Amino acid sequence: MSSPSTIFDCIVIGAGLAGLVAARNLQRLGRCVLLIEAQDRIGGRMHGQYLPSKQWIDRGGQWVGPTQDRILALLDEYNVRRFPSPSEGLKVLVFDGQRYEFDGFFQGFPEGEAPGVSEAEWRDAMDAWQRFEALSQALPAGHPHRNDTNQQLDSDTFARWIADNTHTAFGRWYFSYMARAIGYLGPAEPHQISLLHALWGQKSAPQSEHPEAELLHGGAGQIPQKIADELKNQIRLSEPVLRIRQDSTKVEVETTKNAYTAQFAIVAMPPYHAGRITYDPPMPPLRSQLTQRVPMGCCAKIMVSYDRPFWRAKKLAGIAIGNCQWLELCADSSDPETGVGVIATFVVGDRYSRWRAKSDSDRRAAVLSDLAIYFGEEALSPSTYNEVDWPGDPWTGGGYAAFMPPGVWTSFGEALTAPVGRIHWAGTEMADRWAGFFDGAVRTGEAAAEAIQSLLLAGSSQ
Amino acid sequence: MSSPSTIFDCIVIGAGLAGLVAARNLQRLGRCVLLIEAQDRIGGRMHGQYLPSKQWIDRGGQWVGPTQDRILALLDEYNVRRFPSPSEGLKVLVFDGQRYEFDGFFQGFPEGEAPGVSEAEWRDAMDAWQRFEALSQALPAGHPHRNDTNQQLDSDTFARWIADNTHTAFGRWYFSYMARAIGYLGPAEPHQISLLHALWGQKSAPQSEHPEAELLHGGAGQIPQKIADELKNQIRLSEPVLRIRQDSTKVEVETTKNAYTAQFAIVAMPPYHAGRITYDPPMPPLRSQLTQRVPMGCCAKIMVSYDRPFWRAKKLAGIAIGNCQWLELCADSSDPETGVGVIATFVVGDRYSRWRAKSDSDRRAAVLSDLAIYFGEEALSPSTYNEVDWPGDPWTGGGYAAFMPPGVWTSFGEALTAPVGRIHWAGTEMADRWAGFFDGAVRTGEAAAEAIQSLLLAGSSQ
Repeated sequence: MSSPSTIFDCIVIGAGLAGLVAARNLQRLGRCVLLIEAQDRIGGRMHGQYLPSKQWIDRGGQWVGPTQDRILALLDEYNVRRFPSPSEGLKVLVFDGQRYEFDGFFQGFPEGEAPGVSEAEWRDAMDAWQRFEALSQALPAGHPHRNDTNQQLDSDTFARWIADNTHTAFGRWYFSYMARAIGYLGPAEPHQISLLHALWGQKSAPQSEHPEAELLHGGAGQIPQKIADELKNQIRLSEPVLRIRQDSTKVEVETTKNAYTAQFAIVAMPPYHAGRITYDPPMPPLRSQLTQRVPMGCCAKIMVSYDRPFWRAKKLAGIAIGNCQWLELCADSSDPETGVGVIATFVVGDRYSRWRAKSDSDRRAAVLSDLAIYFGEEALSPSTYNEVDWPGDPWTGGGYAAFMPPGVWTSFGEALTAPVGRIHWAGTEMADRWAGFFDGAVRTGEAAAEAIQSLLLAGSSQ
Repeated sequence: MSSPSTIFDCIVIGAGLAGLVAARNLQRLGRCVLLIEAQDRIGGRMHGQYLPSKQWIDRGGQWVGPTQDRILALLDEYNVRRFPSPSEGLKVLVFDGQRYEFDGFFQGFPEGEAPGVSEAEWRDAMDAWQRFEALSQALPAGHPHRNDTNQQLDSDTFARWIADNTHTAFGRWYFSYMARAIGYLGPAEPHQISLLHALWGQKSAPQSEHPEAELLHGGAGQIPQKIADELKNQIRLSEPVLRIRQDSTKVEVETTKNAYTAQFAIVAMPPYHAGRITYDPPMPPLRSQLTQRVPMGCCAKIMVSYDRPFWRAKKLAGIAIGNCQWLELCADSSDPETGVGVIATFVVGDRYSRWRAKSDSDRRAAVLSDLAIYFGEEALSPSTYNEVDWPGDPWTGGGYAAFMPPGVWTSFGEALTAPVGRIHWAGTEMADRWAGFFDGAVRTGEAAAEAIQSLLLAGSSQ
């Protein structure tokens, strides 16, 4: 434990995955770090819960994919074992009340057999898909910059593109569902999202690389503590940061309880939450405008568990998508080593608002009733039912991640990652690859630590 | 001065116009109020500055109009004299490098003679204008609610409507200029604004009612102090509010310096800034999502004064609009009793970002050079030059006002004004008439005071 007069090399604010990685990496380099967290727990949106059955569930993110090499390296380092997301069996589509079982999938890209919708509907979706992919692939790598093409794409909503590029109800829903299901899109309603942002997300975090391919034995929620073990006495919980002062030589961080001094700071929070802190001197105008314009997605996660994965006896995969009243995506999240059946599902966007207004019992009934449509009556009798209300969580304000409304990337995007004096930024929203996923958080945490280390080395050699 | 243990009837947070009116009105009803302000001054965006010449200029809002009856009543009460905004003479339009002088005007609606653009260009703008007005007038009174029509309008950007409804460069610019010039639109670039928001603004705060018809002798910046004089010992400056706790009987407001208790609180701040406060219990999810999605406009105001209104000798009105490099709107703001010439102008949206990146002297040169295009070489030699960088002001974060991106009204608008327990909301952004103008601020301040008074009466009669 450092004394009150310690001058830290770096203070990291926000003990989500990015902040944990940044602080750990700097400490491994021999730097004196402090990690400050507003909540009474670490992990942010990487957060697990122990059920009475001793089964872990992930209240936040849970999946990883084969090209997410930074999170995979982290898992390997801590010997966290992975298993393939259960997908054997037929998938279910429910569209406009019709239920189809089919041997394929189409979240973010089409795979395998087509569902049983009409040939015209499927072709409409696929034709539009090819145009969307082509537009997306034409973007250069990295964050979208201001140029004429991008300004045009950033002027429209994703909804407008959908309306202009599809002519069947199924085609329209196929893309609207994407907006409400995929990490980099908030999730949000498609008319809230910039077309440029949707295209950029598809380019930098492509579903075709299977970001939901694997799950973790013991859940992702175990990771934060493993990282924190290395930082034991250098973490302060339940200390919201109120103000960050900086001058040409140091940074002063004032929390609800204490004040700390450091050479540098890394703010590892989503942009909106970084903007809630008071800065002295104030943030540059473009950054201030930016942090007013990058909302968190509107999504609750619900984890429902059953004695066993009952759907498998019906040759179903436990994966379902459709335009039911409440649930558009259900994913089998059962750990084969436990024998328990777990479905992860989400209530998103305008569905979330209507659902959230209901009583506890009505919300549960709504979710279970949709699960029964997808998987059968057995779904009505779960052994556990856990809602995670991310928009109601005051220190997160939404989930999975933040997204860009029209005109934010091209007018204010340059302020997203640019350090301001001695303050650097980290968090999955700042990543230019796998933003909105664990991998993006690790990347930005690693990069911020490297940047601070370079500055510290440059400073000490002067 | 109240003792530390005082339980106030109501604490008002934010000493802008709405907060001042709310606190004053409650005090006039015999209530014990406290008004808390983060900045070291009152007034918010109603803010004046005394020049060396003893001339007042308004750094914030400055105009009032004949149907803005709540602000007019306030001005009359304090005997603040008004005068017609100087408009005699020819207006200037500069479009694509061509300069026109004409006896008309067209901010938000067309009046008088058309400018000298081609017949086809003018007709394009006017045809689109009629469609815009018709759409706008079809909206019901009050805040836009969620229904099928509104959801459709809220799905598009204003830019998309412009692209679909105009076919000439002038027609497109005519409406884009509106987005960057009119109070209720942020201002912002048209692709950042919901079409529904643009239409609603035109309905609830119509330019055809001449909201810029009059100016105030001595400036609007004198008003806050007149209201504050009644509240003298009940105002706390330089006390940012960190946290508001409430239970079923009281509200506790914690600032950087003190803690205060009251029966009720009124938060009189733009939604984004209200959202920066920590609430215990947390805000409902829909309100939390809302306050992440209502950015302040991106606009600097520049006040340039001259020994005399030199443009009048050339039969010019001192009113100019056009697509110059930096300035799209200039307005004669000269008080006839002083003899001094004052031009108010604005740098908005993407122009602001490019302009703000320049050095102090280059910014000044950019503004004066555009003024010279509009009004002649004399503009290059002002007696005073004052920039007000609203996006750089940390407690305001932008100007003139907040606006709604696509999908905010219909998904989250219901949380804009709904009280949360013992906390009520005020501020021009919450008005359903003249939002973004002084009048809207007065309306919501008055309404909040009335609501709290009713609750206090109901409580004491129990």
